[in-house]
Amino acid sequence: MRGLQLCGTWKPRRGYTPTQREIEDKRALCGKNIWYAPKIEVTELPTPEPADDEVLMEVGACGICGSDTCFLDTDEEGYLDYVGHTRLPVIFGHEFSGRVVAAGKRVTRFKEGDLVTAETMNWCGKCMPCRKGMFNQCENLEEIGFSLNGGFGQYLTAKEKYCLDINQFKEVYGSEAKALEAGALIEPTAVAYNGMFIRSGGFLPGSYVAVFGAGPIGLSAVQLAKAAGAAKVIVFEYSAPRLELAAKVGATDLCSLAHIASQGGTPADTMRELTDGKGVYMAVECTAFCNKNIPYIQQALAVGGKVVQIGHHAGRTEMFGQYFQKSGAALYGSNGSSGHGIWENVIRLIASGRIDPGKLVEKCFTLDEAAEGLREAKNGTGGKYLITPNR
Amino acid sequence: MRGLQLCGTWKPRRGYTPTQREIEDKRALCGKNIWYAPKIEVTELPTPEPADDEVLMEVGACGICGSDTCFLDTDEEGYLDYVGHTRLPVIFGHEFSGRVVAAGKRVTRFKEGDLVTAETMNWCGKCMPCRKGMFNQCENLEEIGFSLNGGFGQYLTAKEKYCLDINQFKEVYGSEAKALEAGALIEPTAVAYNGMFIRSGGFLPGSYVAVFGAGPIGLSAVQLAKAAGAAKVIVFEYSAPRLELAAKVGATDLCSLAHIASQGGTPADTMRELTDGKGVYMAVECTAFCNKNIPYIQQALAVGGKVVQIGHHAGRTEMFGQYFQKSGAALYGSNGSSGHGIWENVIRLIASGRIDPGKLVEKCFTLDEAAEGLREAKNGTGGKYLITPNR
Amino acid sequence: MRGLQLCGTWKPRRGYTPTQREIEDKRALCGKNIWYAPKIEVTELPTPEPADDEVLMEVGACGICGSDTCFLDTDEEGYLDYVGHTRLPVIFGHEFSGRVVAAGKRVTRFKEGDLVTAETMNWCGKCMPCRKGMFNQCENLEEIGFSLNGGFGQYLTAKEKYCLDINQFKEVYGSEAKALEAGALIEPTAVAYNGMFIRSGGFLPGSYVAVFGAGPIGLSAVQLAKAAGAAKVIVFEYSAPRLELAAKVGATDLCSLAHIASQGGTPADTMRELTDGKGVYMAVECTAFCNKNIPYIQQALAVGGKVVQIGHHAGRTEMFGQYFQKSGAALYGSNGSSGHGIWENVIRLIASGRIDPGKLVEKCFTLDEAAEGLREAKNGTGGKYLITPNR
Amino acid sequence: MRGLQLCGTWKPRRGYTPTQREIEDKRALCGKNIWYAPKIEVTELPTPEPADDEVLMEVGACGICGSDTCFLDTDEEGYLDYVGHTRLPVIFGHEFSGRVVAAGKRVTRFKEGDLVTAETMNWCGKCMPCRKGMFNQCENLEEIGFSLNGGFGQYLTAKEKYCLDINQFKEVYGSEAKALEAGALIEPTAVAYNGMFIRSGGFLPGSYVAVFGAGPIGLSAVQLAKAAGAAKVIVFEYSAPRLELAAKVGATDLCSLAHIASQGGTPADTMRELTDGKGVYMAVECTAFCNKNIPYIQQALAVGGKVVQIGHHAGRTEMFGQYFQKSGAALYGSNGSSGHGIWENVIRLIASGRIDPGKLVEKCFTLDEAAEGLREAKNGTGGKYLITPNR
Repeated sequence: MRGLQLCGTWKPRRGYTPTQREIEDKRALCGKNIWYAPKIEVTELPTPEPADDEVLMEVGACGICGSDTCFLDTDEEGYLDYVGHTRLPVIFGHEFSGRVVAAGKRVTRFKEGDLVTAETMNWCGKCMPCRKGMFNQCENLEEIGFSLNGGFGQYLTAKEKYCLDINQFKEVYGSEAKALEAGALIEPTAVAYNGMFIRSGGFLPGSYVAVFGAGPIGLSAVQLAKAAGAAKVIVFEYSAPRLELAAKVGATDLCSLAHIASQGGTPADTMRELTDGKGVYMAVECTAFCNKNIPYIQQALAVGGKVVQIGHHAGRTEMFGQYFQKSGAALYGSNGSSGHGIWENVIRLIASGRIDPGKLVEKCFTLDEAAEGLREAKNGTGGKYLITPNR
Repeated sequence: MRGLQLCGTWKPRRGYTPTQREIEDKRALCGKNIWYAPKIEVTELPTPEPADDEVLMEVGACGICGSDTCFLDTDEEGYLDYVGHTRLPVIFGHEFSGRVVAAGKRVTRFKEGDLVTAETMNWCGKCMPCRKGMFNQCENLEEIGFSLNGGFGQYLTAKEKYCLDINQFKEVYGSEAKALEAGALIEPTAVAYNGMFIRSGGFLPGSYVAVFGAGPIGLSAVQLAKAAGAAKVIVFEYSAPRLELAAKVGATDLCSLAHIASQGGTPADTMRELTDGKGVYMAVECTAFCNKNIPYIQQALAVGGKVVQIGHHAGRTEMFGQYFQKSGAALYGSNGSSGHGIWENVIRLIASGRIDPGKLVEKCFTLDEAAEGLREAKNGTGGKYLITPNR
Repeated sequence: MRGLQLCGTWKPRRGYTPTQREIEDKRALCGKNIWYAPKIEVTELPTPEPADDEVLMEVGACGICGSDTCFLDTDEEGYLDYVGHTRLPVIFGHEFSGRVVAAGKRVTRFKEGDLVTAETMNWCGKCMPCRKGMFNQCENLEEIGFSLNGGFGQYLTAKEKYCLDINQFKEVYGSEAKALEAGALIEPTAVAYNGMFIRSGGFLPGSYVAVFGAGPIGLSAVQLAKAAGAAKVIVFEYSAPRLELAAKVGATDLCSLAHIASQGGTPADTMRELTDGKGVYMAVECTAFCNKNIPYIQQALAVGGKVVQIGHHAGRTEMFGQYFQKSGAALYGSNGSSGHGIWENVIRLIASGRIDPGKLVEKCFTLDEAAEGLREAKNGTGGKYLITPNR
Repeated sequence: MRGLQLCGTWKPRRGYTPTQREIEDKRALCGKNIWYAPKIEVTELPTPEPADDEVLMEVGACGICGSDTCFLDTDEEGYLDYVGHTRLPVIFGHEFSGRVVAAGKRVTRFKEGDLVTAETMNWCGKCMPCRKGMFNQCENLEEIGFSLNGGFGQYLTAKEKYCLDINQFKEVYGSEAKALEAGALIEPTAVAYNGMFIRSGGFLPGSYVAVFGAGPIGLSAVQLAKAAGAAKVIVFEYSAPRLELAAKVGATDLCSLAHIASQGGTPADTMRELTDGKGVYMAVECTAFCNKNIPYIQQALAVGGKVVQIGHHAGRTEMFGQYFQKSGAALYGSNGSSGHGIWENVIRLIASGRIDPGKLVEKCFTLDEAAEGLREAKNGTGGKYLITPNR
């Protein structure tokens, strides 16, 4: 089989001593500290055999995530420009779907031909957070596409327990190809779902919801907010095409950050205007710049409002506690997408037509076009770019 | 002004001694105990003057509720056949909307011409439950349409603090008349909302929800379940026209109780089949026969499932605790619709087009046709019957 | 090693056909259906070897639970008088603690000499409920003491992931023996904890809490209610010695059911009197007769009150929904004790001296006295009876 | 009657134009903007008459709060150095208790001789937040001791609906004087309670809780954490006497911020050490320097941890979102103490002996010593200073 592989040399950066566990696992907890001279290339590899508790799937589609585009370049010292955990070489890509081509002998829920997806985060099920059901806080996480081979290859194996059936999508989308494209969008939708409904406890139907950032996760948040009964879904974004996409998937109010700035206004003003002075009940932060957005969000929170931080930003954010105190508001940090029935519920929302992540698909690339796809995704201001390794 | 009045004689039933408070208030806590020889008739009354903190509204429309149809007849001993609190004579009707025609001098949020509705339950704001924000459990409740003059008259007064603005409905519905009809449906929608989202804490988007009974409250529950992201809304009902209405407002699976019984099946079987064996996450009981439905519901609850009891039944229900224990499920009793932002959220859901209770309107009656309207509503197997006292 | 074994003959009861899974697993889902001529006896068995992911523990103490005493007798047709799942022969006993004597090579958290306990319910971690963190609803449960060898033997093995460290108890209790006795009480405490704090969401500090039944689980509920800030802990029980024990562990109001009945009163009256008419905010039902208690409990619930059903009763309970509706109350079914950090929190409560389940220990029996111990426990009206197989 | 009055001249600061509402209400929304040349003095005033819905109480004791000590001085331009809303002249003091000496004719719950306290925040009950039960976010708040005459006078009137009975304290404390002193501590306890149990939803019994700041609110938080079942209550504070007081009311771990700094450590290190690396489940911030503490708190949060911000700080706090995301943690802003049954529960906790705020009383001052008392309180590093205007 062929796959897009990220390679690199284990050469701890000057001043960094790998932990005992990193050495045993051959895994960097923070890629940037260890992997030197990374590069990506399409490689030929043996097709894996599924273990007894695994399924082997032929990959249908795999989304290009922002973290994947980090692998295109190195930092100024020639190291991997990525802070997450990684075990190289690895076929990357972690938002995937596929068709089962073989199942291990202890697998009971899947058979050849089934359309499936799998939770990216392979939680251990044994550490204390896992034993509390807090799988996204697993202390021994393995991640498909980072420490295990992922979706930018023709085939991959996944443990049955992380897999979910998406056969119903065929009927919804009319073709297996389209069903698998939608299947590749479950992961980012689940990331938004986790923040909005699990970590922060959701919002009451009829609420006003704001979404900051209309990249794939923000657009998923828009769809989910609409599906869950938001009376208004107010979107803030710089990119005009992304605002258009937001409208297509349910946003009721499109707010160009560029335009607001040019008028001397702020997102806080806009939120207050659009909500008749009441503020937003939930604000979902899905950008890499919460440091810029939260200072405005905190000024326009409704009584009992919630800020859900999903986007990752490497710096500090200045918060003014009195805003949160005065409005009885809260800020929730959110990470990951596993557990809590999240994927199951996202799949049902798609299968029932309540949301359609297929609308977010911008363009599909073959494996040979993969590097080009990553570049486009990096610069992209549209929806989701996919790699379809078997087309 | 003219209004449909319920009169009766204060003549405590043999064996019943009114409480001190009933005597002082001239109000029966349980109508059945005190009001003898009740009758309803259209009467001429002076149009009320709004107090300083009240608005006077010209009634647009007022829904006929099951409790209103109780007033048509007496029990076998000639007493009012109704168990709620009542102060007679009263113009009844408690699901109303109107146009403001005058506002007391301390009123700030409303002006002449505004379309409004008002919370039926006039909670005192002073008792311990009120001071906890549990207004539906107010110990000194007055209710418009039961202890205060209500919506089956041409005009009524309501305290500003219970009133809500529905001006936005004009745009949604295109005419003031239609806007006011929808406005009369807010109360039953709020009753369903209270049970589904406040008392029981709601359900996760993508859940399977069952609704028992497709009368006006059940149909409201269907709309709300759909609006809040249920992947399936499974409705159980005897009446075929009501099942059709359910489909019109968002039900995904229509289950005729008559048909199920004729096939020797049970609603529990049906729920399990429709949910692939997983059961329903929320079951909303909106009939007068929870004693018949809950024994089936408890057998088909999903892990962590919820039963929301909204319908009122005067007898006992046999529950099998082990079903609740095994599935980690819960039963929530729900009453009323006040507080918690419920009416505000329902209004926003309608104003944003997320739900359309206007679809439930079956027929409008003038005041002169009111008695006929009540009879039709009593026998009705369709949607909502309204009285429009100023048409 | 020696152990108290429950044996029986696989002889499905007339009219019962074992499921495919029961046959494959050699396990009865409902013991009563399959196991004929059961008997218990002390047997000599090889000491088990721990697998790579297991610890081998020398049992310190193991509590006798009501379900264990079911194994003393057969039903009238000679079948096991127990409805839970069972795989015979089995060394029973599921409330145990011990000292690690060997650890498999992949075990990292435990070493020889550590005092430990283990979750009884060995959830699979793979089924849908487990993947939601709802381990008590696991579809593939194995249970130590029912389907795996348990604590009424000198040694047992348990998977590391179900084990918890109780070394801190040594300091609290001054001796390893006492520490291990307390360790055997964690399981029943965790059962009460699950119902009170996880399934039903707990109560606000300062609340009035009622506990029905002062057996080991009820007494644990009393301790937990006190530790969590109940202003009153009102206990209802027939047995005078158990009421005394309740007082010892924190009950503020002791209510003899015999005395109440003799006075012509009801527990509902008592709860209303003791709460100044406000009712109880949480009622924890820990008897085998919820059918008798819930009809009273429902009459004396505070606004927003909660009923937590932990005790198991094989019949129906008559509930009057209007009580739950009027007070905005809820009923929560609870089963098991796993997950959600429950055991960890119970251990911390004991280690910090916030609760002392050691006070519940009534008497310890050696293995040779085990049958006698079971008989005493069956008839017992005191605290907890333990078997200490290595004394 | 005599009372300690805060006077000042209505002279809007250069550049500030009072709002229409400020002018009508003769009330500054932010005192600093309007009140010039403030001073405090003991004055003779007519004893007020209670309105029909009010009680008149003889003040027993009234706590000196940090905001009261702001009134001692002016800012550099001679304006009131206080940002809250104020209507001058006013007898200040808002943490009070008293004995009823007269009751208006519509008052039903109180009679002469009753010991009482009253909610400081007089919420309107009519605005949207109030109608949601969010009384602490009332849009028309009046505050006893700021916009209405308060507890540093011999008598005050309060509406019955804000009053609560503390007669039970007499039995707990053995004397009316001590009962009234404890009664003056209910308000700060309620402030801590609101943040810990209402806004943030509390913690599971057995959790590790940290409290930053051991002033009266922090000490109340310590008591409440202990009463609600925290396994550890870790207190961070500079003042040695306050740490001692913390130990007296239930702290399990006393952490001197001065000592930590002198050792080159951080509170984050300390929290991790004391929790065996797991972090704290709840951190209650009760200082004026959340900007200094939250940067450490965020590093030592347990999985699913909560930060409760109660202390007020006028500047920004630098937060690192990734800490919140990685641990699935949240930050809750908290303000006020009204509603939600808070005062009722605090009273029950005291009446049942679960907490004893009487332990926090440092010293009592007469009215004539009031200014001295305010100065001592301002510099104080101990517990609570009270004014007892009728001693």
